[in-house]
Amino acid sequence: MTARRRGGRKRGPASDQPPRAESYRQLSHPFAPQSVFSGDEIAQMHETALRVLSELGLKVLLPEAREIFATGGALIEEDMVRIGPEIIAAALETAPARTRIRAINPAREQMLEDGAMLFYPGSGCPNVSDALRGRRAGDAESYAETIKLHQSFDVIHAFGPSAEPQDIPVHLRHYEMLRAQMVHGDKPMFVYARGRRQVAQSLEMIQTGFDLSDAEMREGVWALTVINTNSPRQIDQPMAQGLIDFARAGQLSVITPFCLAGAMAPITVAGALVLQHAEALAAITLAQLAKPGAPVLYGGFSSNVDMKSGSPAFGTPEHIRCTIGSGQLARHIGLPWRSACGAASNTPDMQAAQETTNSLWAALQANATLTVHAAGWQEGGLTFGYEKFINDIEGLQTVAELCRPEPARADDMGFDAIAEVAPGGHFFSARHTMSRYADAFYQPLVADLSNYETWAGKGEQTSAERATAIWQQQLAEFRSPPTGAAAAERLAPYIEAGTRKGGAAPMDD
Amino acid sequence: MTARRRGGRKRGPASDQPPRAESYRQLSHPFAPQSVFSGDEIAQMHETALRVLSELGLKVLLPEAREIFATGGALIEEDMVRIGPEIIAAALETAPARTRIRAINPAREQMLEDGAMLFYPGSGCPNVSDALRGRRAGDAESYAETIKLHQSFDVIHAFGPSAEPQDIPVHLRHYEMLRAQMVHGDKPMFVYARGRRQVAQSLEMIQTGFDLSDAEMREGVWALTVINTNSPRQIDQPMAQGLIDFARAGQLSVITPFCLAGAMAPITVAGALVLQHAEALAAITLAQLAKPGAPVLYGGFSSNVDMKSGSPAFGTPEHIRCTIGSGQLARHIGLPWRSACGAASNTPDMQAAQETTNSLWAALQANATLTVHAAGWQEGGLTFGYEKFINDIEGLQTVAELCRPEPARADDMGFDAIAEVAPGGHFFSARHTMSRYADAFYQPLVADLSNYETWAGKGEQTSAERATAIWQQQLAEFRSPPTGAAAAERLAPYIEAGTRKGGAAPMDD
Repeated sequence: MTARRRGGRKRGPASDQPPRAESYRQLSHPFAPQSVFSGDEIAQMHETALRVLSELGLKVLLPEAREIFATGGALIEEDMVRIGPEIIAAALETAPARTRIRAINPAREQMLEDGAMLFYPGSGCPNVSDALRGRRAGDAESYAETIKLHQSFDVIHAFGPSAEPQDIPVHLRHYEMLRAQMVHGDKPMFVYARGRRQVAQSLEMIQTGFDLSDAEMREGVWALTVINTNSPRQIDQPMAQGLIDFARAGQLSVITPFCLAGAMAPITVAGALVLQHAEALAAITLAQLAKPGAPVLYGGFSSNVDMKSGSPAFGTPEHIRCTIGSGQLARHIGLPWRSACGAASNTPDMQAAQETTNSLWAALQANATLTVHAAGWQEGGLTFGYEKFINDIEGLQTVAELCRPEPARADDMGFDAIAEVAPGGHFFSARHTMSRYADAFYQPLVADLSNYETWAGKGEQTSAERATAIWQQQLAEFRSPPTGAAAAERLAPYIEAGTRKGGAAPMDD
Repeated sequence: MTARRRGGRKRGPASDQPPRAESYRQLSHPFAPQSVFSGDEIAQMHETALRVLSELGLKVLLPEAREIFATGGALIEEDMVRIGPEIIAAALETAPARTRIRAINPAREQMLEDGAMLFYPGSGCPNVSDALRGRRAGDAESYAETIKLHQSFDVIHAFGPSAEPQDIPVHLRHYEMLRAQMVHGDKPMFVYARGRRQVAQSLEMIQTGFDLSDAEMREGVWALTVINTNSPRQIDQPMAQGLIDFARAGQLSVITPFCLAGAMAPITVAGALVLQHAEALAAITLAQLAKPGAPVLYGGFSSNVDMKSGSPAFGTPEHIRCTIGSGQLARHIGLPWRSACGAASNTPDMQAAQETTNSLWAALQANATLTVHAAGWQEGGLTFGYEKFINDIEGLQTVAELCRPEPARADDMGFDAIAEVAPGGHFFSARHTMSRYADAFYQPLVADLSNYETWAGKGEQTSAERATAIWQQQLAEFRSPPTGAAAAERLAPYIEAGTRKGGAAPMDD
């Protein structure tokens, strides 16, 4: 379903227009960004975050990171680091406002900049779930399947680790994760920041698998990683190490404080955003001190907890406000940024769709550059759901369609068509209709628009139930991109040698 | 659940703050309106609609309406009416930009004006459906139940006829419809425009039931009706009659062309909107010619059809664009307006939630004044679903919460809270949290945020399944408003006498 063709399955009279190939590969936001806070309030939040960093500081567990901060002028006391506003300002000077991310297929490349709109699959889930095999820990089979599903839909713009292959020992796991992305796909890639050796080997695999020159590798952003701070005010060893290594390798750190108001952050939206902003600024600064100009995404993923269960909440009013406020803060410092959809629901039901759709529209209101967890994420991130993934793709494709300008030339206004059809008549066979119907409308992926009797006759399936057949079909019909076979061949000896040498243990933190 | 209290059921340490009573009764849009078309394109669409009306005209089946148009200067040829732009311009001069709609409970009154945000229940469905009793034709029992459900949630701002009581003969049905609204509720009311006698009797019932003086009745807008044009370019007899009668009685006509692109309207978004606009302008003009200053809402409810099944589609890219474009057209002519949510799904599933949530956010992008079918509408309007209603209320309450300004005073920014909590710690027991937690967050109605094991232990219920218990509880605990008993008493003799005289037959069209 790459370069998905619309109208191909439509019935009706022959059109004089060929079905159109629609592309969702490079998207720009269709709506102007909205605000939750005034410009003064945002400036005040930025100032408060700077005070947090200079007066309170944050705990940095990796000695090498503290040394880098010290070299940049920060004050170090044991493992606490206090960072003055001038250090932050200098980092924001060098952090790039535009980052091109590469892919082995040039048509899959992306530009991360203000106004761009990218979607990222639900990621980081320990479990996967589908209607046929139930809920289970992610393994090599499901990891490969999720990569194939990501590859199958253009509206997913990069690979995520939806669930990692936990049946593979952790010191060898990165081999399989990189291999599957390169063999089954041709989109921008993900690497876990789990210690210097794993990161180095993962980047070597990209270079080897795609046969890139040293210059191509050094000058291009081929991999992204997600850097989570340990809110509040802490950066652990693997994350600090990852930030440094990715910065020095010129690869992208997606900086992600996960500030849940009332739990790891102040209970107010403004307070959660101040903490998020302080932590993101600290991480951006570490990356810039490690290598000025290092590609980074500002991270906005704050929401609230459910005060009854202590669970994270998504698609709530507070999540929506946090997302829009994050967009304001990102634009305040002039950086592209990551947001996130989410769903707390434990099953692909109305709640799941409402939570995800609300948070997707929040990302639109916020003009998020990269919206993570945009498809398949459920249980607050503990499970990647195949059926939810398919339903969420429908939502993303709906939004992606809005990026196309709506034609409004004289002929589009339809005066002649209106003149042609008598009062009380219909437009089905009007010339205006006949010449356009084949590609006039978005063709649903999983939505069933047939009437009740037809739907009931087909077995009264919910959209979650229909989704099962769709992901099965996607996987059955999946064909690896042309670059996959060569990558597999190049990687085999690298992986074999690496495995023989014992792989690479992740860093303890 | 009127004046719903938040935090009442929360566990945890005692708060020093009383639980807050949250009101969703009067809402203003939280976001600036967005655009699909340029200002020039919208002006061109308006001009094209004027050309449709003056050059092509529309068919008006009621002779009285043609006479009114003729008096206003329109050209009549048999049943075709051609309306010049100066007649439209004059009508737009007198159509009010603000209309206050009354309710027997003054706290339920609403102002229809630019920026106001009202939600209206799913309406006009022949069937109702719930998990206990299945799908069935609407009857007196379900009619009363739906009125009680509308009354139970503040975020529903007026009564709709979710499904009418089809077990009551049509010449007596309006008695029960008006009675149930006045006995069980205290919100703005709905009257079907089904002929002069039914309308007159319905308005008499409002006056009688609520003991209003002639002046109160004449000067206040106590009832609204929905006027559907018969797209394309036709106004039937009951609709024309209703427009005239409501205008003369000073009651509100919600003018609603239902222009499905590719079926009853041109296949382009721009073309569907031109036809919608022409029909709405014609109906507004008839109302203004019947009585200058008559309250009207401009109607924007255009979408596309599914080209495979011919069924109407909702929450699609085309529906979203039609909605936002409608808002632009309404603001172009300076009138408050009605929009609509919708769902084609035949069951309360992810598709239903996605369609409804997408169309709800479209109404937000469009700054719709009155969003109809905002809760409970499924099967493209053929069924009102109880479980979907409850889930949709969650979506509306989420949006309503966004209307509250987000505090961002110094204390809200949480610097002291951040200082109080050590790196890596948590905010659960911070002073900042303790003083705010009871009402910090929206408390879900049907969403279950508990973790997988807890949720599974409770029976793995979907949000649709949980909704069954919620509507049952709402109905079991329902208490009529204080005004209900007196209204029942006053109406009994009126209904008895009217029934004895044979009620009022609807007009044939």
